[in-house]
Amino acid sequence: MSEHQEQPPPARRPGRRPGGPDTRRAVLEAARAEFAAHGYEKASMRGIARAADVNAALLHHYFGSKDQLFLAALDFPVDPQVVAPLILAGDRAEVGERLARFVVSLWAQPEVRDRLLAVLRTVTSSEEVAALVRGFVVRELVGRVAEGLRLPDAELRVEFALAQILGLALARYVVRVEPVASAGADELVALLAPTLQLYLGGEA
Amino acid sequence: MSEHQEQPPPARRPGRRPGGPDTRRAVLEAARAEFAAHGYEKASMRGIARAADVNAALLHHYFGSKDQLFLAALDFPVDPQVVAPLILAGDRAEVGERLARFVVSLWAQPEVRDRLLAVLRTVTSSEEVAALVRGFVVRELVGRVAEGLRLPDAELRVEFALAQILGLALARYVVRVEPVASAGADELVALLAPTLQLYLGGEA
Repeated sequence: MSEHQEQPPPARRPGRRPGGPDTRRAVLEAARAEFAAHGYEKASMRGIARAADVNAALLHHYFGSKDQLFLAALDFPVDPQVVAPLILAGDRAEVGERLARFVVSLWAQPEVRDRLLAVLRTVTSSEEVAALVRGFVVRELVGRVAEGLRLPDAELRVEFALAQILGLALARYVVRVEPVASAGADELVALLAPTLQLYLGGEA
Repeated sequence: MSEHQEQPPPARRPGRRPGGPDTRRAVLEAARAEFAAHGYEKASMRGIARAADVNAALLHHYFGSKDQLFLAALDFPVDPQVVAPLILAGDRAEVGERLARFVVSLWAQPEVRDRLLAVLRTVTSSEEVAALVRGFVVRELVGRVAEGLRLPDAELRVEFALAQILGLALARYVVRVEPVASAGADELVALLAPTLQLYLGGEA
C-alpha cells in the first residue's frame, strides 16, 4: 500500500489518475462488479481498468496482480502470497507448528478477525460470493500450495487443513463456544499444530 | 417420532390434545419462542407447555426431554443422544474411524445436509441463534462427551473435532471447493479419521 505515496508515472493517454482516493474507490467498485459478473478465473485486469476508466498499466502499478486486487476489493483476510511460502518454505517437519502459530497470531488482530467473519457471513448467505471465493481459493491458494507439497492427495490435504482452520474460527468467533472461545494462543497451537502437521507434513 | 401414531393417554385437565398436527405446530412455535427468549439453558418445558396451552406431562410424553424438543423445533441436524454414545462406547482406538464414517454417512442424506446448511446460515447471520446453538451444544454435546472421555482438555478436544467436521461441511457443501466437494466417502474418511483419533483418542 506504500506505493500510494509514490509519484505516479506520467500518464500517456486520457483516463483517471489512479493515485487518488476517488480513483481507488472506482477501481475497487469496478473490480467487485467484474469479479461478481465473471468469477475470479475469468475476470480480467483489462476489463476492470476499462470499467474504472484507468490505464491498465497504471492499474497494475498501483494494485499489483489480479490476486492482490481481489484481496483489496473483497477485503479478503488471507493473502496466498504470504501463506503459500510460509507452508512450503522451511522445515517440513515443523509445518504444522509454523502454520498454527501464524493463524493464531492473525486472529489476534481484530481487523483481520472482522474481515474473516464478514467473508464467512457472505459466503454462507450468497452463492455468488461462494463461487467467487471458491475460484480464488482453488487457483491462488490450494493449487499453489498443493503443487509445492508433492504429496499424494495434496489438494485434498490442503483443503482439510483449511477446513480445520475455518471451522475453528467459526467455533471460536461466531458460535463462541467455551472453552475454545477463550483458549489462549498456546492451548490452541498445542491442538492445532499436530493436525496441520498430519495433513501438510504428509503423516496421515 | 413413531409416538405420534400411538393413542394419546386420557387428558386429566383442559388444554389442547397434543397428538394432532395443529398442536404439534403450536408446540414447536412456542418452543422456538421460548428458546429464543431465554436461551437453551433457561428455557423450560413447563414454560413451553404453558405457552402452547398443553399439559406439561403430555408434552414430555410426545416430545421427550428438552434436548429432543430443541432438535424438533430448530430442525437441528445433530442429536447428541446418538453422537455421544457413538464416541464413548466401543474401542477408543477406533473412535476416529467410527465418528468419521458416521459423519460422512450422515452427509450422504440430502435432508440432513439441508438442515446442516440452514443452521450454518442462521448461526453466521444471527447472534441470537448463535447463542442458542452455543447453549445447546455446550450442555448436551460437548459437556456429555467430554465427561466420558476422561482426558486433559477434554472439552477443547471435542470442540476441535467438531470444528474440523463443521469446517469440512462448509468447504464441501457451501464453498464447494474441489476436490473436497466431490471426494468419495472413503477418501474423506481416510483423512478425517486420523484427525478425530488425535483429538478424541487422546493422541495429541
